[in-house]
Amino acid sequence: MHGQAVVVGVGESEYYKHGRSPDTEFQLACTAIKNAAEDAGLELRQLDGLISYMDDRNSPLRIAAALGFDELSWSATPWAGGGNNSSATLQFADAAVCGGYANYVVGFRSLAQGQFYRLGAGTGVASGGGPPGLGWGLPYGLMTPAQECALHTKRWMHDHGVSQEALANISLACYANAQLNPRAVRYGQALTREDYHASRWIVEPFHLFDCCQENDGAAALIVTTPERAKDLPGKAVPILATAQGLGPEIGANAFQERWFPGMYYGNVGRMIWERAGVKPEDIDVLQLYENFTGPVVMALCEMGYCEPEEVEAFTGDGALEGPNARLPFNTSGGNLAEAYIHGLEMVVEAVRQSRGDSTCQVDDVNLSLAVGGPGYAPGSAVLFGPAS
Amino acid sequence: MHGQAVVVGVGESEYYKHGRSPDTEFQLACTAIKNAAEDAGLELRQLDGLISYMDDRNSPLRIAAALGFDELSWSATPWAGGGNNSSATLQFADAAVCGGYANYVVGFRSLAQGQFYRLGAGTGVASGGGPPGLGWGLPYGLMTPAQECALHTKRWMHDHGVSQEALANISLACYANAQLNPRAVRYGQALTREDYHASRWIVEPFHLFDCCQENDGAAALIVTTPERAKDLPGKAVPILATAQGLGPEIGANAFQERWFPGMYYGNVGRMIWERAGVKPEDIDVLQLYENFTGPVVMALCEMGYCEPEEVEAFTGDGALEGPNARLPFNTSGGNLAEAYIHGLEMVVEAVRQSRGDSTCQVDDVNLSLAVGGPGYAPGSAVLFGPAS
Repeated sequence: MHGQAVVVGVGESEYYKHGRSPDTEFQLACTAIKNAAEDAGLELRQLDGLISYMDDRNSPLRIAAALGFDELSWSATPWAGGGNNSSATLQFADAAVCGGYANYVVGFRSLAQGQFYRLGAGTGVASGGGPPGLGWGLPYGLMTPAQECALHTKRWMHDHGVSQEALANISLACYANAQLNPRAVRYGQALTREDYHASRWIVEPFHLFDCCQENDGAAALIVTTPERAKDLPGKAVPILATAQGLGPEIGANAFQERWFPGMYYGNVGRMIWERAGVKPEDIDVLQLYENFTGPVVMALCEMGYCEPEEVEAFTGDGALEGPNARLPFNTSGGNLAEAYIHGLEMVVEAVRQSRGDSTCQVDDVNLSLAVGGPGYAPGSAVLFGPAS
Repeated sequence: MHGQAVVVGVGESEYYKHGRSPDTEFQLACTAIKNAAEDAGLELRQLDGLISYMDDRNSPLRIAAALGFDELSWSATPWAGGGNNSSATLQFADAAVCGGYANYVVGFRSLAQGQFYRLGAGTGVASGGGPPGLGWGLPYGLMTPAQECALHTKRWMHDHGVSQEALANISLACYANAQLNPRAVRYGQALTREDYHASRWIVEPFHLFDCCQENDGAAALIVTTPERAKDLPGKAVPILATAQGLGPEIGANAFQERWFPGMYYGNVGRMIWERAGVKPEDIDVLQLYENFTGPVVMALCEMGYCEPEEVEAFTGDGALEGPNARLPFNTSGGNLAEAYIHGLEMVVEAVRQSRGDSTCQVDDVNLSLAVGGPGYAPGSAVLFGPAS
């Protein structure tokens, strides 16, 4: 029903282990946006839309004033969730541009976990507008995202006879791909299966290396119309389809026995395949959000890549590792091994794959998919076509 | 560039003085949405999009679970601001529907100031993602929204020789129109010019009756495509154009001397007139957000209705009062005299005017405009055409 928006610029700050950034979170945001504008060949004053995550601390008013926008005509965030906000951010940029509401829309995420608080730390408070999943789990002793996801994963593994090796396959793929990517915080820190199994439990079934990092950094993308992109020097990557989706297992309903074993990617999977008219096997390269490995394994099944009983084989034998993988996957190292910029760095990587400038570049990329999650808000997805 | 979305249902809770609601804020939200769905002839399970204000406490996950949505496929809020979120909410519903991202999108606001905190109370904290205007003003002793808006207004009145009567005209119009509206919290409490001038100062130039109320209540609207609307029993009100807009006076820049006297409706005014191809004098009925009367007076000038030196005459002699006013204005009583549901109740009234079922119904409404503000986020506007 709508036109086709394109990504014309991507930008990032340097990525740091949490607490290591010499710049403030706000400076990191500005750096990523400035780099994206430079990449696009745009002046900062031309930017006129800002989208970030619902809890981003870097107000659009401060950003627009600091960078000298002539006008701000689209200012939005997804509502609820966390990692799902990554691809949802691109959906809103697509909506803004296709609807003619703004001309050059920035989606960004700046997250300095070393300067504020660690998302992975336990909380005693369920915020009203924020992801209330933890609030619902607290009475049952679930104090952190890792504990919450572990319980879903453990039950699902039990139901389907999935072993720890499936989780290991995800972690090893991310770490292997990060060894090709000098931006990755885990660059130069290769991981073996023995290292993986020997690492400490965070919460079963999650070892240390099943968990995303906690980082300081920022990432940004700029979206405009194909017509405006013609006047810009670089490549334009079309947004073929976007989706947010979550079914009746929403919110506290996920604690019902019938819905508990899962991570709720079924709706967003169905939507993105239907809207783009493609199937999982048509995707050339996949960036799949990993706060923890367990949700990735469940997502592959829920989105139709394979059955739960097949997922160990589907992900095994290096099937996800490197540019020539059976399924090229999290090619920058993802949240686990590049940096946890809450998944937006994975959307940047999806664009790089379409442009042909990844450090783990897949040949002849036609369809590049980035999926945000997990399930305490609608899952999200954005599908990019080949750059032109 | 995009298709045309339509409003097919509106709903409200009862409106209360703050602290008087027997229902929780969450129950109020559900009531307004249920009433809107009933008005539209939709089942609750069919609703699949939720938009509210950025600080709304009623999570989309809780709403969707409680009301039994089959699927949630659009979940968004404006970013920053407060009152501007009213018409911006409709822009996002328009975007969701025109882009094909969701089918039946709810925009709602539930605000029980009696159960949480009063927005008008002083604050010592500038929230990161929230409207940081107060944070910037705190070092200068501006502790409340009333103090902040008063300073802008006072300087602007001084610069242009505008007297207190212009502010009185706004308040009197809202109170007069509320006397026709049994839903209005101020129904049965007529206001005279003598009452107005005799009321206590909150902060000069704002008397008590220059300030919006603090209420408990909720309002909701449902947006879909014209095609889907054909299968519904009621009237469909087309969204002709929407806008968010704020210029370089954004954020802390507003404290610069060149920009301080004003309320920053110029950009959103230009946008809505250009996008719809209409002029201020084409508008049949106007709902203009009043947290305080001062911003309304400035907005009328900034949006092109008149010059500052003319605004006393433009608003005087009952020019804004009743269905046969020179400029029919805040016909339900608005934030001042119907209820302060953060301006979303004024968008509901704009739809009522297009449908012909206001308690202060203007004849032959062709163009009905609702404008959200004020300036600490992009101003917003939504223009409705005649119902069909």
